Amino acid sequence: MSTSWFPQHVIARKRDGHVLSADEIAAFVRGATDGSWADYQLSAMLMAIFLRGMSTPETVALTDAMMKSGVIADLSSVRAPKVDKHSKGGVGDKISLHLAPMVTACGVAVPMISGRGLGHTGGTLDKLESIPGFRVGLSLEAYREQVERVGCALIGQTKELAPADKKLYALRDVTATVECLPLICASIMCKKLAEGIDALVLDVKFGHGALLKAKDEARLLARTMVDIGNAMGKPTRALLTSMDEPLGRAVGNALEMAESIACLRGEGPADVMEVTYALGAEMLCLAKVTKDAKAGEARLREVIANGAALNKFREIIAAQGGDARVCEAPDEVLPQAKYRRELRAAKAGWVAEVIALDVALAALQLGAGRVCAEAAVDHAVGFTHLVKIGERVEAGDVLAVIHANDKARMDTAAHILEEAIVIGGASVKPTRWIEDVIV
Amino acid sequence: MSTSWFPQHVIARKRDGHVLSADEIAAFVRGATDGSWADYQLSAMLMAIFLRGMSTPETVALTDAMMKSGVIADLSSVRAPKVDKHSKGGVGDKISLHLAPMVTACGVAVPMISGRGLGHTGGTLDKLESIPGFRVGLSLEAYREQVERVGCALIGQTKELAPADKKLYALRDVTATVECLPLICASIMCKKLAEGIDALVLDVKFGHGALLKAKDEARLLARTMVDIGNAMGKPTRALLTSMDEPLGRAVGNALEMAESIACLRGEGPADVMEVTYALGAEMLCLAKVTKDAKAGEARLREVIANGAALNKFREIIAAQGGDARVCEAPDEVLPQAKYRRELRAAKAGWVAEVIALDVALAALQLGAGRVCAEAAVDHAVGFTHLVKIGERVEAGDVLAVIHANDKARMDTAAHILEEAIVIGGASVKPTRWIEDVIV
Repeated sequence: MSTSWFPQHVIARKRDGHVLSADEIAAFVRGATDGSWADYQLSAMLMAIFLRGMSTPETVALTDAMMKSGVIADLSSVRAPKVDKHSKGGVGDKISLHLAPMVTACGVAVPMISGRGLGHTGGTLDKLESIPGFRVGLSLEAYREQVERVGCALIGQTKELAPADKKLYALRDVTATVECLPLICASIMCKKLAEGIDALVLDVKFGHGALLKAKDEARLLARTMVDIGNAMGKPTRALLTSMDEPLGRAVGNALEMAESIACLRGEGPADVMEVTYALGAEMLCLAKVTKDAKAGEARLREVIANGAALNKFREIIAAQGGDARVCEAPDEVLPQAKYRRELRAAKAGWVAEVIALDVALAALQLGAGRVCAEAAVDHAVGFTHLVKIGERVEAGDVLAVIHANDKARMDTAAHILEEAIVIGGASVKPTRWIEDVIV
Repeated sequence: MSTSWFPQHVIARKRDGHVLSADEIAAFVRGATDGSWADYQLSAMLMAIFLRGMSTPETVALTDAMMKSGVIADLSSVRAPKVDKHSKGGVGDKISLHLAPMVTACGVAVPMISGRGLGHTGGTLDKLESIPGFRVGLSLEAYREQVERVGCALIGQTKELAPADKKLYALRDVTATVECLPLICASIMCKKLAEGIDALVLDVKFGHGALLKAKDEARLLARTMVDIGNAMGKPTRALLTSMDEPLGRAVGNALEMAESIACLRGEGPADVMEVTYALGAEMLCLAKVTKDAKAGEARLREVIANGAALNKFREIIAAQGGDARVCEAPDEVLPQAKYRRELRAAKAGWVAEVIALDVALAALQLGAGRVCAEAAVDHAVGFTHLVKIGERVEAGDVLAVIHANDKARMDTAAHILEEAIVIGGASVKPTRWIEDVIV
């Protein structure tokens, strides 16, 4: 190894604002993976990257090196085009649950590996695990086999993929270097690109309930990730979507699973379906199954109408050990909370705000999310029947139904939720969900 | 402890360019001392400080916290005013060796604790250790007792003083965060202020052979350290001095010791004495022994002329176990190199350059310095009879005498030295040694 790759030299180059070479970036990532860079050197480098930034070519090189730090899933035996969708998550965002079987039903393979992460409300894996028996901990070989046979597997992060990301993420968390665009982009993209996909659609959210509040920042994040994917030979598109109010009318793991099943039955809330069709249409276009987004949406409506999407979900659930009867009788199969309470409007008016972050905090009070990595989530709790911005309500109308397993927690959640739903005296436009498509 | 002192929070505040409170800085330094901050958090913070900088009040708070991380020497039993001098070191800079006994002979206590450090040529401790028997590893109690009894002790860094500095310096060395003004200033000043002094004079060098090449940077370093000392109630002054050519005519540990003894005998080179008198005069002024620099210089000339300074040096050497006969017969007591070679001028002219850094590299080839902390230095080797910039030489005149213990190394050193001494066809002004006094 050249002395120019000594940790101090590479750190000093980034510290001084230079553009690093792919070799220098590879040395850093190799150092994170094999321990040849000490933690204190990795963290000094992370802070230098945080404060000096990275060009897109540098971020591409970082993503590439992180992707290559572990196994890259080999899905070459899968004949169908392989397209995944990624979302940084948002309150009420259950779209992956029904989108994956919908797109698979259209003849596209959807190999989806999700992280667990922290969150006020559960993530995709938690929602899947609300189905009794559903296993997300498949081996990479079982994953490959299932994608080949069923066309889709919905599994959790495995330690073979992108180990450098695991190492760097843990350090970023304790060194104040989390909120850094190139590091965020590389962390997301290296894992997605290690899944063995051909193309990728991203759902990048902005607003009060999103990781990035500002639309411009979210746009830059989306732009950078799209550039990375394209630069690495995997056609990538991003939707820029709103996260000021929760998506859909349900928040909470099993409750969102039930809502996703409703979506597959053609009974999904309009906002959820709007975003679902838009994301799914892009996936079908990238897979070259349909020639444009309009044709893609039509195809997606078809697999819902003819039951093919719901059938595919049954197949996926069964393949992963879950109770597929959930598709017919979600209320019987999914865990139910002990207590329910209706939150009602004190006055008539129009729903002016449903503050996503506060709804999430209320759900966290109920036990729907986790505050530390080891915590268990309560699958049953959360909210249903949430009103949507722009809707007219009369005094006494139901604004939401709270599902709880503990009365004191239900009281706290009700107080937070009451503050989160703002009723105004003038009519309000509904949320504009899709801001832009970035290609 | 408040959550606002969690490492991540303090790091994030500096990362975002905020001015840290004294409490936040104290939390960081406490974390470095007691291990409550992990190394990777300390290094992320160091990089954030490197790139965001620190205001003077922050740097003062950092110095104060680092000083208080260990023992502060208690010299309250010493009745004389206690004034030290610090230099970041330069090629041929042996001034501490004779300045300390000179100032002590004027009635000022000089408690001087030096670091070992790396360097192309040896440091003060190496030069002292060229005297057979001289011990620099005194305990703090023995140090206090000697300062009380003799008025001066010249010792090495002890682990009780400023342990936070030791920890942070080791991390800076391997995380590319060494060359950072507030960190450099705090590192120097915390150790000096922990010595138990009343006042401090700094010799801050600029030029090819100095740590900081640019005069403006050196001036800013000096300004910051003077501000820190004054803010901490210890009157501090700095001389801004040149380090383009070596100080004096000797480079190398024992050879510089011999030159220092010559200084104490009234036979020192003009350039060394000019800087010595200037530094010493400031020390006497800060100690209120003399009312101005002119009177200070007169007093210093007096203790040389009457032998009091040389006597004081004898006393210090004897107190620290060294062979005090070195003061009468340096050539007999100090180690002598096996080989000597005269480097002679190829042509007549004026000495235009004696490039300090190259002279140092040549000395390093001979073994006079160390490349890693564990390396031993050869006390005997180096150069004498070095010509000075501005001097007239004829073809065949001696430009320097090389002292070596290995013939191959002597050849290499001779080649480097030949390149380092530039003879020009036009007359050249001698070096202006003292650029400014910063109070």
